[in-house]
Amino acid sequence: MKILVINCGSSSLKYQLIDMDGEKVLCKGNCERIGIPGGMITHKTADGYEIKVDCSFQNHTEAFTKLISMMTAGDGAVIENIAEIDAIGHRVAQGADKFPHSCLLTEQVIQQISDLSELAPLHNPAHIQGIRAAQKVFGADLPQACVFDTSFHHSMPPKAYMFAIPYEYYKKYNIRRYGFHGTSHRYVSKTCAKLMGKPIDQLRIITCHLGNGSSITAVDHGRSIDTTMGMSPTGGLMMGTRSGDLDPSVVTYIAEKTGEHGNEFLRVFNERSGLLGVSGISSDNRDIERAASLGNEQAQLAHDMLCYQIKKYIGGYIAAMGGLDALVFTGGIGENSDEVRGDVCANMEYLGIKIDEEKNKTKGDIVDLTAEGAAVKTFIICTNEELMIARDTKALVEVDAMMHTKKVAEPEA
Amino acid sequence: MKILVINCGSSSLKYQLIDMDGEKVLCKGNCERIGIPGGMITHKTADGYEIKVDCSFQNHTEAFTKLISMMTAGDGAVIENIAEIDAIGHRVAQGADKFPHSCLLTEQVIQQISDLSELAPLHNPAHIQGIRAAQKVFGADLPQACVFDTSFHHSMPPKAYMFAIPYEYYKKYNIRRYGFHGTSHRYVSKTCAKLMGKPIDQLRIITCHLGNGSSITAVDHGRSIDTTMGMSPTGGLMMGTRSGDLDPSVVTYIAEKTGEHGNEFLRVFNERSGLLGVSGISSDNRDIERAASLGNEQAQLAHDMLCYQIKKYIGGYIAAMGGLDALVFTGGIGENSDEVRGDVCANMEYLGIKIDEEKNKTKGDIVDLTAEGAAVKTFIICTNEELMIARDTKALVEVDAMMHTKKVAEPEA
Repeated sequence: MKILVINCGSSSLKYQLIDMDGEKVLCKGNCERIGIPGGMITHKTADGYEIKVDCSFQNHTEAFTKLISMMTAGDGAVIENIAEIDAIGHRVAQGADKFPHSCLLTEQVIQQISDLSELAPLHNPAHIQGIRAAQKVFGADLPQACVFDTSFHHSMPPKAYMFAIPYEYYKKYNIRRYGFHGTSHRYVSKTCAKLMGKPIDQLRIITCHLGNGSSITAVDHGRSIDTTMGMSPTGGLMMGTRSGDLDPSVVTYIAEKTGEHGNEFLRVFNERSGLLGVSGISSDNRDIERAASLGNEQAQLAHDMLCYQIKKYIGGYIAAMGGLDALVFTGGIGENSDEVRGDVCANMEYLGIKIDEEKNKTKGDIVDLTAEGAAVKTFIICTNEELMIARDTKALVEVDAMMHTKKVAEPEA
Repeated sequence: MKILVINCGSSSLKYQLIDMDGEKVLCKGNCERIGIPGGMITHKTADGYEIKVDCSFQNHTEAFTKLISMMTAGDGAVIENIAEIDAIGHRVAQGADKFPHSCLLTEQVIQQISDLSELAPLHNPAHIQGIRAAQKVFGADLPQACVFDTSFHHSMPPKAYMFAIPYEYYKKYNIRRYGFHGTSHRYVSKTCAKLMGKPIDQLRIITCHLGNGSSITAVDHGRSIDTTMGMSPTGGLMMGTRSGDLDPSVVTYIAEKTGEHGNEFLRVFNERSGLLGVSGISSDNRDIERAASLGNEQAQLAHDMLCYQIKKYIGGYIAAMGGLDALVFTGGIGENSDEVRGDVCANMEYLGIKIDEEKNKTKGDIVDLTAEGAAVKTFIICTNEELMIARDTKALVEVDAMMHTKKVAEPEA
């Protein structure tokens, strides 16, 4: 079964074609600047072919047409025609409390995703554009599935997802913690359990997804019981350009001082804060570490704050779960920064965490960092949200086919 | 030495007269509704006399005149005249980064407290009213000291006190974590070390000051290295009516929905949130526990959220300090709610914390709750900020007198 995994932004469309027989990525790419002058497509195949072409897309439909031609013709071709694609899996950012699981696409599902747009104005409308374009290009009969960033966190108890604000705002405006990066946290926690050779429902795992956007999740016996991101991806831990949680008076004080408010004002905390805001130089952790090593004090502070906040969340989630069996680092920073991992795990022996300095310098998809004798296993596990989306899509298509066969078969029995 | 401890609000004036010989409270009271119709004074003495009298105060000066007459005449008298008072100690809420220690009052100090009013608009101007009134009533020669809620947190490192917002807001507007309840955290952590028979600089202590306002502090070798309250007392842990920290998008989303902003809007998070906001019934933890026991689900949720948040902060500060020797509960809720203490400490054995269920039901100024075999000592320690203010005032007055004597003496030597 070949599955096309799609992650649509308002002006971008990332794709991966995965052959589920062996879970092999056949090709992947990105259409950038959709609807904006200066568009381009990047396309890579498993056997090393790579191309970047300028081309303009008026809309997502044109982007799909272009990526199909890349996949089916010329040096980047990996299939002969689109009939070889068995299903499409879409990443959807905000499923709120409506989608506890991934699901096959129906008109009702599209409507519900659309209804949640207010909670994810940058994401959900773009996903719908992508879904509609895919229906147009591939035909309405091709099965499509939606996999939500929020579903994994559906298991959080109210004490973890409620904010201590007037209850009416929860009832009226659905203001609560939803959490994001769920597909990543689910993937790495499952992989972690497999590595440990134990059923996930016997383990307490903390997964640190650290990238440009970052979140940490407490995975208690296989279920997310708490996560750092809040109602939106602005909350929780500080990130590349996002502030994370704040004393609310900081928000109103800045608003008063600058005279800004509303959505424009929120950009202060989404685009000008985090590593960028503190360091004043970059949102990219590699730049921060380089500058800090050259003596830039604000960069050093940004690094120290990031590591310190991660450390505190880990301690908090150990308290929440009453213990810990494994700690996982993933995402661009989690997978690549031995400095962040090293500083986060320093002086954590009391909590059972100790990593081996030499192992921490290793690169790899999966690295066991655990120092000898440490009670808690610490791993790097490269995340793979696309594979998780493809797996969910495959499972949904298969179950649907089975039920369909059964329904058709029953009258004959 | 007799010291008058003063805690001034804009319309209230709390006082305690403490005889430092034996640290005995001679009398205490409260002038309420200063400058508002319907004022009254409450006055209690050590030997059990208690009175509540309606009386109107135009201003803080009149309140001082009234409390002096209570102290010096009639059945509530504890001294013959005000000449017996050796010094006054004022509680000051916001000292920001200007006051690392308590200090004797000078015109410069008054100016600095006034300069910080923008960071504490409800508190600092009221403190100055109290200080000026005291100067008028007691004369400018009586030594007065200022003891700041923030001073104890002066030792926090930047990684703990900086917010991940644009650095310019820290430089321009002094937006950072200051922390409050410092006098209480200092008092109970010192008392804790004494109880343990160890120098405080060999201990890692977490102090939970839980009342209508609540904060938790990591006291690492005698120094506050982190605390939950932020720039203002709105941040950190959820409280009676305050939200604590939030995803900033929650703040801007509610502003957008309700059309409110500015200082008026901040009242949502200061006066309508916390236990009151979630439960919908009360900001008083006793009401919450009663309602929860009768099956009120929102009250139960408010209780669960409070305990869960405290638990996570404790875990976070254990990670920050790399371990823990003692945990202290203080403040109205911390001293009196065995339910909160019990739920916070449940399932914390991994972190070395275990309390004895029977001991947890005990009332007392100091109770050792530690279960047999637990690595971490857990105590109830009733806080006494007034005594701490009096001790600081006494020490400052004595040092000043010594230096004065020395200065005067030197030329003669």
